Amino acid sequence: MSNGDIFVGEVIGTAILILFGAGVCAAVTLRHSKARASGWVVIAFGWGFGVLAGAYTAAPLSGGHLNPAVTIGIAVDTGKWGKVWVYLLGQIVGAVLGAVLAYLVYMAQFQANVRTTDATGGTAGEPVPTLGVFSTIPEIRNPVANLITEVIATVALVLPVLAFGLTKGLGESGITVLIVSLLVVGIGLSLGGPTGYAINPARDLGPRIVHTFLPIPNKGTSDWGYAWIPVVGPLIGGALAGLVYNAAF
Amino acid sequence: MSNGDIFVGEVIGTAILILFGAGVCAAVTLRHSKARASGWVVIAFGWGFGVLAGAYTAAPLSGGHLNPAVTIGIAVDTGKWGKVWVYLLGQIVGAVLGAVLAYLVYMAQFQANVRTTDATGGTAGEPVPTLGVFSTIPEIRNPVANLITEVIATVALVLPVLAFGLTKGLGESGITVLIVSLLVVGIGLSLGGPTGYAINPARDLGPRIVHTFLPIPNKGTSDWGYAWIPVVGPLIGGALAGLVYNAAF
Amino acid sequence: MSNGDIFVGEVIGTAILILFGAGVCAAVTLRHSKARASGWVVIAFGWGFGVLAGAYTAAPLSGGHLNPAVTIGIAVDTGKWGKVWVYLLGQIVGAVLGAVLAYLVYMAQFQANVRTTDATGGTAGEPVPTLGVFSTIPEIRNPVANLITEVIATVALVLPVLAFGLTKGLGESGITVLIVSLLVVGIGLSLGGPTGYAINPARDLGPRIVHTFLPIPNKGTSDWGYAWIPVVGPLIGGALAGLVYNAAF
Amino acid sequence: MSNGDIFVGEVIGTAILILFGAGVCAAVTLRHSKARASGWVVIAFGWGFGVLAGAYTAAPLSGGHLNPAVTIGIAVDTGKWGKVWVYLLGQIVGAVLGAVLAYLVYMAQFQANVRTTDATGGTAGEPVPTLGVFSTIPEIRNPVANLITEVIATVALVLPVLAFGLTKGLGESGITVLIVSLLVVGIGLSLGGPTGYAINPARDLGPRIVHTFLPIPNKGTSDWGYAWIPVVGPLIGGALAGLVYNAAF
Repeated sequence: MSNGDIFVGEVIGTAILILFGAGVCAAVTLRHSKARASGWVVIAFGWGFGVLAGAYTAAPLSGGHLNPAVTIGIAVDTGKWGKVWVYLLGQIVGAVLGAVLAYLVYMAQFQANVRTTDATGGTAGEPVPTLGVFSTIPEIRNPVANLITEVIATVALVLPVLAFGLTKGLGESGITVLIVSLLVVGIGLSLGGPTGYAINPARDLGPRIVHTFLPIPNKGTSDWGYAWIPVVGPLIGGALAGLVYNAAF
Repeated sequence: MSNGDIFVGEVIGTAILILFGAGVCAAVTLRHSKARASGWVVIAFGWGFGVLAGAYTAAPLSGGHLNPAVTIGIAVDTGKWGKVWVYLLGQIVGAVLGAVLAYLVYMAQFQANVRTTDATGGTAGEPVPTLGVFSTIPEIRNPVANLITEVIATVALVLPVLAFGLTKGLGESGITVLIVSLLVVGIGLSLGGPTGYAINPARDLGPRIVHTFLPIPNKGTSDWGYAWIPVVGPLIGGALAGLVYNAAF
Repeated sequence: MSNGDIFVGEVIGTAILILFGAGVCAAVTLRHSKARASGWVVIAFGWGFGVLAGAYTAAPLSGGHLNPAVTIGIAVDTGKWGKVWVYLLGQIVGAVLGAVLAYLVYMAQFQANVRTTDATGGTAGEPVPTLGVFSTIPEIRNPVANLITEVIATVALVLPVLAFGLTKGLGESGITVLIVSLLVVGIGLSLGGPTGYAINPARDLGPRIVHTFLPIPNKGTSDWGYAWIPVVGPLIGGALAGLVYNAAF
Repeated sequence: MSNGDIFVGEVIGTAILILFGAGVCAAVTLRHSKARASGWVVIAFGWGFGVLAGAYTAAPLSGGHLNPAVTIGIAVDTGKWGKVWVYLLGQIVGAVLGAVLAYLVYMAQFQANVRTTDATGGTAGEPVPTLGVFSTIPEIRNPVANLITEVIATVALVLPVLAFGLTKGLGESGITVLIVSLLVVGIGLSLGGPTGYAINPARDLGPRIVHTFLPIPNKGTSDWGYAWIPVVGPLIGGALAGLVYNAAF
């Protein structure tokens, strides 16, 4: 695969992933959305099928990593680091692009994120915080615990991916991506409770940059103080999975 | 494939799609339905498995497009426009047929869509609006924002379909349709919040025609003022996906 | 396939189907169940994965019809009626067996289906009706409408099954049963609202017989007046699907 | 497969299974979890996709049994008992490891499991029982009924697995594990209501040991009086499935 194909594939694939992922968070949390308050099962399947859509689209061009933790895990396992920077660059650019697309899909909802009044002039609805559409927020802010959560959840993604997944080549079995996407659904359902499961540095960092600059009414903080955890945790987890895979298999 | 096979395939397949799709909207919104108020996850999976049922059934005859946006996207990509009109005709006829079938399945519920009284003669239940069973309605009525939503959501459907999908021939891998159907589930979960995700001109137009003529008690408006958006948006999105695919892959 | 293999396969497969199907209805409706009131999505996936479990298990022996409507549809299409009686006999016996197994799984819940009192001796809970665990009950009792619902919903099952399914031989593609099971999930989500989607005469009749004879506290009526509709409707639907398939494909 | 590979495969695979399974129980029941109270459908899919993740990862090393009931069922069917002890040892060790990992993921939530007060010093939240995160608890405590439930639910797992599953070799069809995982989702939805569906002695025993020793605030009883049922029931069910399979197929 040429550097150009890898870059284009990762940009398109990661953009689709984040479009679906940020999209489903908007769908469930913003007012005036048909899916409002439809629950955690919708969040988890939305992100998982975002992996499905993005990885299948990117697969012919780049193999469809869409996640620096996956790229690092494969590099640690194989020892091949030459193209890692192309993957990472594509993933960050794609994540930024995907967050902008998700904003455009929910533009009217974001613009309506203001205090609404009822017939008597009283408060009918308060603006909702918007960072959760873009990036992860821990339920309990505890750096050590949050980091451990992200490390383990990322190992639970990358170790199975290495064991049955992308390294063997997508062409051999179209079912691989389907299974990875259901694996991501499972991680969301099972391990997403404490931190919202970044498990992907690009997934968290790219949209956080977009949130910082987009003109959204009452958007609230972009919480950069937390931003290092969903970057460092998944990178450690990806590398750890590569080491375990190399030792055990 | 002969024109006759294509037409029959698209009629049957699109009819099944709309039977399931309008059916699940009836199931969740009408009174006296066992699935009433069962939530957005039911809507999204119902539409997605309608794609599964319709596309697998139509596949041997027509390839199972079931959606003018998909047909246009393939035509833009391949440059072959000769049979497009057969596909579109079959899709519209099928969508009308499917909406009538969904009405028949929920006939008793539609006929019971009247004001009900409690034991003392007071109001126990008001009729529910019925257009949402047939066609899409935006949560916030904003033509520019609604159009953008439909364009992006349709690109998110047709670009992956082109990348891994129907153009390569269903016969090669039976899993393709399954993945497209889960992709449609994902689009519903993630991108359906603002407009109800038409992403298919036939899916919206055919049932709206049926809603206009069916004798349903208290059926409310058929909202033709909005009808152009779920036609034009998906057509733009399909064409755009064809252009992007042609350029990137 | 020998008559013995067909009979054993259909008994085991249909028993597993009804164990899962009646089981999930018990799970959602009975008191003292962890899944109580978990909603329509649970019902639909429980039945669908019952098809998955039963049909895969039965496939090597009988092909895994598990449903007289499927058997009739295949016979109408192929003109081969010689072994139909073996299939139907196995399906009815299996459905009875499966309903007994589901009763055994939820035995403690059924035995606890009595009026409970609170600390002051007042009523804390009333017994729940139990027929819905075993057989279908329409939301609006209207024989013509109920029959139409069952006919169309069964066509929506058998026509796709004929088009992509069992007739081509399970051995060729293990994915067929998976897709049929998701199709059944979709029928439940979309078309189950009015009558609870029997779409299978054995699925309704076998468990109704069991409900009639089992000693369940406060079990309520077995509603034999309705019992002909979920038998006749699916048989008409299966035959109709066979005719449409034969004409169109 | 060498004893070393089998042991390592079963440890890793079962650890992943329990990480997901105990994880989803924590996600749904603990306070300060984003998935709190998200319902039975989340529990069932979380466990099922835990099977997906664990079995695919373990498959190249051990075939991915992850469950003494499956190992026993295969041994009863094939008559080969030589390596059973290696499987069982790996499964128990893996289950203990997985429960510890799930604890680490939800560490902050467990540490916050204390009585909380509102602004006026009143009670805002009571600690929640924690055993349900780790091991099964019956809704109605009735040893005979609970044992029957576990036996039948385990037959419903192992009989299909034998009929289409692991014994034929994973390498032949990557779809097998996917189907087993959806089968486990179905068992959860349909048969999990009375006892929480252990259907796996290691799944219940390993985490119960961990619950006994972990320092969790207000953790409540580890309920060893019930512990024999989710061990004995699944072992009987697995053996029974092996016998039925051997006789019928």
